Amino acid sequence: MDEFARIRLWTGGRQRPEWQRSRGVVVGIGDDAAVLEPDLDEAGAPRQLVWTVDTMVEEVHFNAATMDDPDIGWKALASNVSDIAAMGAEPRHALVSVSMPRTRDPERVRRLYDGLYACADRYGVAVVGGDTTSSPERLVVTVALGGAVEAGKAVTRAGALPGDLVFLTGPVGLSAAGLHWLSRAAGGFTGPVPIEAAEAAGTAALVRAHRRPQPSVVAGRLLALSGACTSLNDVSDGLASEAREIAEASGAALVIRERLLPVGGDLAAYARAAAGGDEARAGELLLGWMLGGGEDYVLLGTLDPAGADRLARAFHEAGLALHVIGAVEAGPPGVWLEPADGGPRRPVGAAGYNHFGGGREEDGDRP
Amino acid sequence: MDEFARIRLWTGGRQRPEWQRSRGVVVGIGDDAAVLEPDLDEAGAPRQLVWTVDTMVEEVHFNAATMDDPDIGWKALASNVSDIAAMGAEPRHALVSVSMPRTRDPERVRRLYDGLYACADRYGVAVVGGDTTSSPERLVVTVALGGAVEAGKAVTRAGALPGDLVFLTGPVGLSAAGLHWLSRAAGGFTGPVPIEAAEAAGTAALVRAHRRPQPSVVAGRLLALSGACTSLNDVSDGLASEAREIAEASGAALVIRERLLPVGGDLAAYARAAAGGDEARAGELLLGWMLGGGEDYVLLGTLDPAGADRLARAFHEAGLALHVIGAVEAGPPGVWLEPADGGPRRPVGAAGYNHFGGGREEDGDRP
Repeated sequence: MDEFARIRLWTGGRQRPEWQRSRGVVVGIGDDAAVLEPDLDEAGAPRQLVWTVDTMVEEVHFNAATMDDPDIGWKALASNVSDIAAMGAEPRHALVSVSMPRTRDPERVRRLYDGLYACADRYGVAVVGGDTTSSPERLVVTVALGGAVEAGKAVTRAGALPGDLVFLTGPVGLSAAGLHWLSRAAGGFTGPVPIEAAEAAGTAALVRAHRRPQPSVVAGRLLALSGACTSLNDVSDGLASEAREIAEASGAALVIRERLLPVGGDLAAYARAAAGGDEARAGELLLGWMLGGGEDYVLLGTLDPAGADRLARAFHEAGLALHVIGAVEAGPPGVWLEPADGGPRRPVGAAGYNHFGGGREEDGDRP
Repeated sequence: MDEFARIRLWTGGRQRPEWQRSRGVVVGIGDDAAVLEPDLDEAGAPRQLVWTVDTMVEEVHFNAATMDDPDIGWKALASNVSDIAAMGAEPRHALVSVSMPRTRDPERVRRLYDGLYACADRYGVAVVGGDTTSSPERLVVTVALGGAVEAGKAVTRAGALPGDLVFLTGPVGLSAAGLHWLSRAAGGFTGPVPIEAAEAAGTAALVRAHRRPQPSVVAGRLLALSGACTSLNDVSDGLASEAREIAEASGAALVIRERLLPVGGDLAAYARAAAGGDEARAGELLLGWMLGGGEDYVLLGTLDPAGADRLARAFHEAGLALHVIGAVEAGPPGVWLEPADGGPRRPVGAAGYNHFGGGREEDGDRP
């Protein structure tokens, strides 16, 4: 059996045909292209389609120490699920392209798909096609994801209005802190740093946030269907960068109050540990991860204060968090931070990761 | 201006917003995900969605000699358009992911997009999103393409019946012969072999077939809407391999008559030249390219003979070719060739290119 046959064996039959049919799959994996039923809303009208694509490249988005193969598969899909969630849509169908070095044990592809299908099952995504090619040196994984949203209900970045509240659906900075710890710990291991080492170090929650992010689909749906959410982004490139995108698209200023930012206990403890007891340095690390870290995949958005109480109740009933962290003001597009120490507000630079080394990444779904 | 800003400048505004809206684009490039209107048929019912993805990797699918940057962009989209055509569907919306080495002149990305958008304009495809990342060594381009087809009209590989005719919508082997010539000519040039050199050598048509394939969308639409087409594939991995896929999916034998295979004059002439006047060797080269070459992106299929005359007229009126090359027979799935010299039929091995070196590639839309 050649490698391709093995890969087919490992990737075929992962999702039951009956389940795929229930997700509208007419023709799935194995023909020239997949055929899918249009998705209808409760009134029987066709929903709009929501499409996104994301690529993960070895040595750019992950390396042998930071991510194990199933983590790569999980995160390759999860980053796309998060983009769909950030429009208020429901993820439905995925295409997967894997370019794998010839020298790599094909067993590792099976393990990558284990993680990808675990994420697909978690979020109800039918994998309907893909492409498998070789790659001279590096593993490259691209996932394209399609979702559905009720006509006119998608939430873009462009609707924030002065007077709106700024919110987060969860803490930020955990993934960046997890990566920080993994990079320091990497030297002690060949291959992926084991989760047991993170558990021993008290950083397991941070490492899990980095390796197995949990996109905020239910929160995104509540926000889109509420009618009160005026803009929405997922935190893939860092809170500062995402806030600036909303500010620029909406033509308004976002003011974030540092004391309102949700901070996980593990995050604060790791910042103190990483700073070697230097409290000022710990604070800098913490704020850096929170504003510039990225890959947290919680949602950042703005909402009409008139709808805030109702949304807060809906989130509470769903067991979800909704943290108000600031407000939208009239003025030139930009992001401001009101420091926790009561000092004057200061402009926040966009500190997202740029693959090419200069300034922030022009990300979003932009080729 | 950093590289990402330059790339954004070069890829933004390539398609007029009004035209994109006419293609159902509600939110295009620049947000977390694109939002698209569902496509309706003439009676106002939603059409089914058809999705595919294909990846091109430097040093695997092309190299510095065989393809110039605009060719890479063209072909990355065209290979997907061909998959949509092979279902009988109409291509509509594309997502583009480019992973580019940091050391590469970003100007080359602009030229890649020149070719991709030329193909998009040719086939009416709206580019609605993408991702741009860095890559340690090699350029990797992934395109995901969505199309639409009237409900129930998509044509898979699985419907060929004994008694059906086997057809091609154009000649095969040109792309492989073009690559053969390019590989021989590569040593004489730094960078892409210029088309002028191919013109001087009489191989320009072969090189164009390799670099700028023309998918068969109109033919695919005629076939799907005719109701007479029982199976359909595009010739991406070679005639033998595609025929075997139809045979296996349909549970029937495909018999191809060598003397019915359409042969372009340029192809026969180049086979003779490449064989150095050895007629037997020229015939072997020719048949090898035709059966095993791939990347021609014509359509191979089967049709009910009762509908053949009507389809032939429709193709003729559209200025398209429809070459009957054989017939479907009952029997174990397989592909047979009846030699032009009147000898006994012989089984045809699948000679498609396998990225991992063992047997044929398990391609199609299969992750």
